[in-house]
Amino acid sequence: MNPGRFITLEGGEGVGKSTQVKALAAALRARGLDVIETREPGGSPGAEAIRSLLLHDHRWPPEAEALLFAAARADHVAVTIRPALAHGTWVVCDRFVDSSIAYQGGAGGLGFDAIRALHAFGSGGFRPDRVLLLELPRAEAHRRAGDRDQGAADLIGGRAVDYHRRVTEAYRRLVEEAPDRYCVVDASGSAEEVTARLFAAIEDLL
Amino acid sequence: MNPGRFITLEGGEGVGKSTQVKALAAALRARGLDVIETREPGGSPGAEAIRSLLLHDHRWPPEAEALLFAAARADHVAVTIRPALAHGTWVVCDRFVDSSIAYQGGAGGLGFDAIRALHAFGSGGFRPDRVLLLELPRAEAHRRAGDRDQGAADLIGGRAVDYHRRVTEAYRRLVEEAPDRYCVVDASGSAEEVTARLFAAIEDLL
Repeated sequence: MNPGRFITLEGGEGVGKSTQVKALAAALRARGLDVIETREPGGSPGAEAIRSLLLHDHRWPPEAEALLFAAARADHVAVTIRPALAHGTWVVCDRFVDSSIAYQGGAGGLGFDAIRALHAFGSGGFRPDRVLLLELPRAEAHRRAGDRDQGAADLIGGRAVDYHRRVTEAYRRLVEEAPDRYCVVDASGSAEEVTARLFAAIEDLL
Repeated sequence: MNPGRFITLEGGEGVGKSTQVKALAAALRARGLDVIETREPGGSPGAEAIRSLLLHDHRWPPEAEALLFAAARADHVAVTIRPALAHGTWVVCDRFVDSSIAYQGGAGGLGFDAIRALHAFGSGGFRPDRVLLLELPRAEAHRRAGDRDQGAADLIGGRAVDYHRRVTEAYRRLVEEAPDRYCVVDASGSAEEVTARLFAAIEDLL
């Protein structure tokens, strides 16, 4: 049995990650693969409990927030991701450590290396087989984010425009530093067009 | 105005820490000081929410547990401890980072340095003005632990005898490595006798 592959979707708010996680998982299932869809923060019972602390209950000091993300990820990797991959199941995940690096490390000012050190401790530095970074032209990203139900915005998604601009810059800096680690995918056009681009970007892993 | 002092009580299960935190705080108040009593994990609304995840809801991978303790402590230090000290209030705390070092780092096998690194990240390595380490002869510690209501034992206090033996050894190793950082206090005898010893051990800070 081949081990499964671990694919993450990354990007700022409003680029369509959650829609595309479902669509990409469906496309992989259509090829006969076992696939689970998961998300961060969350993806295991413990990590989902941490998610509710992170997104809805409390405003944390930045360092506490980063530690909670790392704790949730350690549980998610140990309880959900590694066992699935070991059983030959593919895992498609909405956000992973690159989100922590871009948000808490970049936009939040804690630094990339500090977040990587937490990930090294919490999850042995576990990396995806492929990171798909969805990018939209800035005007379209802003319009899409504005279209979402503001009442449902969580404490991180609801931060100021300037915070989200720094997130986008941090993702760009990550790609510049290690272009072979990221697969940048154009997120404009119809959902079907984007799914086709994402599938093309992982087809060599099949 | 003088800043307050930060005093922590440390030791294994059943050495009388929670009783002595109350008694020591009362003795300091009798000298006219403003004093708060607090505890870890917990001591701020966010950290208390993490406490319930740690002690009652879930069995965590060891790394996730250590990250959750560090997150709770970062919140506790930022929200409760530092502001109190800045206002001239003394803080007497039932457990602090030395518990994480002895339990997760020592008994749990993650290593002292890893836990110190999390504390450096989360709380800037913030240290108490005095660490009071309560020690009992082993037979008496065991008897006292057995006397406590087993139904109320939490997920960490309820771990195996061997785990708690390693905790005691880890505390001893910490003292050997840096004897001037710890004040070892004999926890045997009456509660009043122990309180008098603890008070004598901090009287120079008054």
